Amino acid sequence: MRDTIRVLVLGTGNMGSEIARLVLDKPGLELAGAYGRRHERAGMDLGHAIGLDRELGVPIDTDLAAVIERSRPEIAIQATCSRIVDAREELEALVGHGVHVISIAEQMVYPACSSPSFARDLREMALARGVAVLGTGINPGFVLDLLVITLTGVCADVRSIVARRVNDLSPYGPSVLAAQGVGMSPEAFSEGLADGRVAGHYGFAESIHLIAAALGWQIERIEETREPIIARVRRETATVVVEPGQVAGCSHTAVAYREGRPVISLIHPQQVQPQAEGVTTEDVIEIVGSPSVRLAGSPEIPGGQATAALAVNMIPRVLSAPPGLHTMPDLPVPAALMGDARQRLHDTGQAGQHG
Amino acid sequence: MRDTIRVLVLGTGNMGSEIARLVLDKPGLELAGAYGRRHERAGMDLGHAIGLDRELGVPIDTDLAAVIERSRPEIAIQATCSRIVDAREELEALVGHGVHVISIAEQMVYPACSSPSFARDLREMALARGVAVLGTGINPGFVLDLLVITLTGVCADVRSIVARRVNDLSPYGPSVLAAQGVGMSPEAFSEGLADGRVAGHYGFAESIHLIAAALGWQIERIEETREPIIARVRRETATVVVEPGQVAGCSHTAVAYREGRPVISLIHPQQVQPQAEGVTTEDVIEIVGSPSVRLAGSPEIPGGQATAALAVNMIPRVLSAPPGLHTMPDLPVPAALMGDARQRLHDTGQAGQHG
Repeated sequence: MRDTIRVLVLGTGNMGSEIARLVLDKPGLELAGAYGRRHERAGMDLGHAIGLDRELGVPIDTDLAAVIERSRPEIAIQATCSRIVDAREELEALVGHGVHVISIAEQMVYPACSSPSFARDLREMALARGVAVLGTGINPGFVLDLLVITLTGVCADVRSIVARRVNDLSPYGPSVLAAQGVGMSPEAFSEGLADGRVAGHYGFAESIHLIAAALGWQIERIEETREPIIARVRRETATVVVEPGQVAGCSHTAVAYREGRPVISLIHPQQVQPQAEGVTTEDVIEIVGSPSVRLAGSPEIPGGQATAALAVNMIPRVLSAPPGLHTMPDLPVPAALMGDARQRLHDTGQAGQHG
Repeated sequence: MRDTIRVLVLGTGNMGSEIARLVLDKPGLELAGAYGRRHERAGMDLGHAIGLDRELGVPIDTDLAAVIERSRPEIAIQATCSRIVDAREELEALVGHGVHVISIAEQMVYPACSSPSFARDLREMALARGVAVLGTGINPGFVLDLLVITLTGVCADVRSIVARRVNDLSPYGPSVLAAQGVGMSPEAFSEGLADGRVAGHYGFAESIHLIAAALGWQIERIEETREPIIARVRRETATVVVEPGQVAGCSHTAVAYREGRPVISLIHPQQVQPQAEGVTTEDVIEIVGSPSVRLAGSPEIPGGQATAALAVNMIPRVLSAPPGLHTMPDLPVPAALMGDARQRLHDTGQAGQHG
């Protein structure tokens, strides 16, 4: 057994950079390599790319097969995209090379939801190569699904669930903001919804079907609504300026029906600088059942930081999991990875068995 | 494979009765038998004992080996006691007969904590007999440990944790109230603390060591304090009257130190009728780290209902677990068991793999 867990990071944007910094910080983890899609960064030292003031001796490679073969990673963290259509090729290359994978692509949180045949194929491939694959992130992957499911564990009966995440997009980069319509005119937002450029939140279907699978519910249909959040005051971040009357974000809601009745409502308005208009950011979970449960926190768990932490914290869980395709509720809960990562791997699954 | 999961319930007090009612309610579960310690109940039909208006054809048996052999349970739920010294003999009989076990005995939530050699022996026995054993409950087992650990999953770093559960003991029976000193004079409370009759909360050490194990922290020492909560107004429940000046409950706190610094503080004042003096009941978890996280709910998750639900909801998880001795953070998260229990067992661990 090696002394360190060799980690390959895919993606050198905001999320990939944060994940790389965590891998560098954690004892027992070793940053084995870095893959980036953007050819203008090929060969750049990762230290420079992620804003460190030192070279890491890890060049960014745009040839995934080459970097896998050169860096011999035990596990890879994919932070390149949101959708399976974009994630697929990289996932197949990683699994095909026998590398365990944690993906923060939103659709990978429950791949069977959007892409059942791909999920089946990837599972077969993972089983054949003896590796485990997991999708995670703050949302989907944690607040509006894993945490909801966990809280239903104290219920003898659940009648309905409402979960709301009101967050601040200010730390995010241009691609995330564009998908929420931030900075657009209301007309451009409507056109963007129609042509798909404005997507709102990726992950409602994944969260709903994870909850439903955990509870044993059959969902009949999901109704989604997307409304522009119109700024009444000027809102400004490092990457965007929203003038009054322009779109500050997207209020996106999904309601799932079972036996003709709304049973899961997920509410997720995303915008820049909500505090500029007195909007409180928060995470709220309300379960109506026996007993009813309500848990809330404000401000919201910060999405970028939390997603990077979850991806890294799940490394010991994924390395200890049986081969195959996993979801967050399939595996033991995440925990902050504080000690030596290789040692934590020994501990995993043994907590009840210490003498 | 049988169509139903045969469940033996140990204990016919408040908790055992609630668990038996849930087992009767859930499709796919079958109440195979009932064991009680109190000889005056031997032979009584369980339906009468748990307050149903019908006979169940399930007599309460005080001979555990006999009821195991007659009822052939797949799994047993133990609701007879709090401490391992009291739970031990029943656990050995169950595991020795090849029966999976879920115990709500507080010390069984992390048996290696109070009884390392027993935990080792029970683990060996469970492995030899091919069964899984789990301790669960609202606290320890959920609010002040599993939920705390889960929330640290979004943190890159954790510096300290404070968790507080302010609950209402009014629904509980005489044995629980006596252990908190409810109804005593302040002098009797002090004497009770000294001679062990007043115990406060069972489970701080278990919760702290579960959190520490999950994070990879070494705990140097735990400091516990127990203070009487003196009633200023009359407080009355179905089983006790507390006059002003008498003890309404016990404010019990545990602080765990690491590298000389307090890192985990668990605060759990337990009393009857807190609302009589304007005390808000609540569950609060605060993690100071990167990022910091705070989640809270009021009123508190009701302990009795939640513990019974957790015990029953964990049945599919325990039946799907590998043989051995498990803790809540070792296993996938609980979820309300809503559909057919036998079907849910098929689903467990497969959520990512559906097509």
